[in-house]
Amino acid sequence: MNSINQILSQITPLDEQVMKNVSKHVDQLTKPIGALGRIEELAIQLAGITRKERPTVNKPAIVVCAGDHGIVEEGVSAYPQEVTKLMIQNFIVGRAAINVLGKQIGATVTVVDVGVNGELDHPSLVKKKVKNGTNNFFTEAAMSEQEAVKAIEAGMEVAQSLIKQGHELIIIGEMGIGNTTASSALIAAYTKVAVQDVVGCGTGLNADEHQHKIAIIEEALRRRNINEASALHVLACVGGLEIAAMAGILLQASANRTPVIVDGFISTAAALVAYELCPAIKDYLIISHQSVEPGHKAVFEYLNKKPLLSLDLRLGEGTGAALAYPLLDAATRILTEMATFADLGIEKKKEATESTM
Amino acid sequence: MNSINQILSQITPLDEQVMKNVSKHVDQLTKPIGALGRIEELAIQLAGITRKERPTVNKPAIVVCAGDHGIVEEGVSAYPQEVTKLMIQNFIVGRAAINVLGKQIGATVTVVDVGVNGELDHPSLVKKKVKNGTNNFFTEAAMSEQEAVKAIEAGMEVAQSLIKQGHELIIIGEMGIGNTTASSALIAAYTKVAVQDVVGCGTGLNADEHQHKIAIIEEALRRRNINEASALHVLACVGGLEIAAMAGILLQASANRTPVIVDGFISTAAALVAYELCPAIKDYLIISHQSVEPGHKAVFEYLNKKPLLSLDLRLGEGTGAALAYPLLDAATRILTEMATFADLGIEKKKEATESTM
Repeated sequence: MNSINQILSQITPLDEQVMKNVSKHVDQLTKPIGALGRIEELAIQLAGITRKERPTVNKPAIVVCAGDHGIVEEGVSAYPQEVTKLMIQNFIVGRAAINVLGKQIGATVTVVDVGVNGELDHPSLVKKKVKNGTNNFFTEAAMSEQEAVKAIEAGMEVAQSLIKQGHELIIIGEMGIGNTTASSALIAAYTKVAVQDVVGCGTGLNADEHQHKIAIIEEALRRRNINEASALHVLACVGGLEIAAMAGILLQASANRTPVIVDGFISTAAALVAYELCPAIKDYLIISHQSVEPGHKAVFEYLNKKPLLSLDLRLGEGTGAALAYPLLDAATRILTEMATFADLGIEKKKEATESTM
Repeated sequence: MNSINQILSQITPLDEQVMKNVSKHVDQLTKPIGALGRIEELAIQLAGITRKERPTVNKPAIVVCAGDHGIVEEGVSAYPQEVTKLMIQNFIVGRAAINVLGKQIGATVTVVDVGVNGELDHPSLVKKKVKNGTNNFFTEAAMSEQEAVKAIEAGMEVAQSLIKQGHELIIIGEMGIGNTTASSALIAAYTKVAVQDVVGCGTGLNADEHQHKIAIIEEALRRRNINEASALHVLACVGGLEIAAMAGILLQASANRTPVIVDGFISTAAALVAYELCPAIKDYLIISHQSVEPGHKAVFEYLNKKPLLSLDLRLGEGTGAALAYPLLDAATRILTEMATFADLGIEKKKEATESTM
């Protein structure tokens, strides 16, 4: 816990002065004021995170955190637990969606075993296993607080190592059969939104299965007797090892002024864990997309955040974040490559309504 | 008009069989059914357009069509007409937003003068000037039908030439002070949505200026005595030369089975012109983003189309389409680079609701 407390104290508010300077520069570029919308906002946010007036996001690194979930014993998932391991093999041979989208944006893909149930061995797999999957949180806490801390620290170590290697941006993604259930439970516990408004029907669950998933989470939350005042306690009660690790990445990267793109529903649950541990992280959060899970919206409202994309994705792995990366890249490029009105010899006009100037 | 009629007959429905085959392949990839949402839809649409089961969108070409608008005499724009020429110089020296975003995606940028008011000369400028800007459509038709045809043909020639050079995808963008006014008039005329629901306040016009813009368009539409049954007549009455050229690009590219990404409000008005000339083009349309102009939504509803992005953009030039390009690139890559469940030795499960499988 010491290492986590140390990191929390290093996460300071975004640099207002740098953001003001960049905002002024953006308004001098050859376009109407605000015409690049959220791309401009991203440029300013990236400047605030990195404390650089001309930030770059070169060498993006994707981290897929993997962990299993004891709660699958309750029949909440359409896939068997073995699929976690099979998908990890798919990541390692480079043929999953995240590999394809990672290659497209020139990103490395690091797979971290934080808590997969069973042995996995491959030279390119980062082994940080805390335990063989969480406990079934319907019958006992998913993990101890010590285990939750270990999983957060695993993420911190991975982030630290990637940043040292010169990666200027990290994408967090995950793999773990059962992890929408853990994420839904975390979101309901932290935001106090009703479980039935967090858990989705998806395309795979019929009405009965959907109701079953809701009932399991509701009863589990009752049984765990959760003290919401302790962010770590909630995480240990109903969270996931890979979720904890992603929170650790967010915390470490933010302390190091390195931007992170949050992926979908499960990654956003991790962002919520990081926020509950350290509210200052809110302004650092860049959420890539709106997933189809209804609980995702609950977190956006709770954190007052707006995702960049809305493409009906529900894959995880970091795929939505990888798809959003070019928007951040674009944001940094406009700051250095566009001409200003002064360059063109045009006196800047008042804010214009015309779409093309 | 002969060349246009010839092209219209070459635009045939998307290839249903190819789309079915690709859809089947997408469902065998290592992800839950439908988990890549609109990326999967794009993959299938691109297959239908190109008639290829493994389409590619290499060597994207951005075309910025430029033209001036006589209607600016009525005080509908926050920028003076000279800005069109100055921005073209900015495009040519490569320092406008579209150059930056074009470079990011490895696209060429072609600037076409279809109707800029005044002389422009540069070896890299494509000269297809039909006239020195449209007439003020408050007092007379913006152009003759012959001029509208010439402008459409200009776009067709540019598209033909780019496709011959091996560009597998075209992005249409524009520059022309006053062209949101022409676009709003076109959209109101074609869709019959009330002018006041099409014209936006933007950030530059105060309430009075906004009302003035609405009043000018309403009165102009009355005076032009428009026969909505003739798509070409509407275009000639209140359209723009660069808008006609973009419609020409869409028609020619679709006939050649080459996908086009439509940019923002003005490009979408051009897509609407193309649709009114040739309804079969609807399934070819890929609209990059939802602009802040309210009239944009009216067209989406009219065409039953959904833009890919919503980033509060209102710049034009093709910038929104350039930002959307990586999504199309991703769509083609998943078709060739992802493993199938059979590759992994997993029997495919029923549709799953879990976000990560």
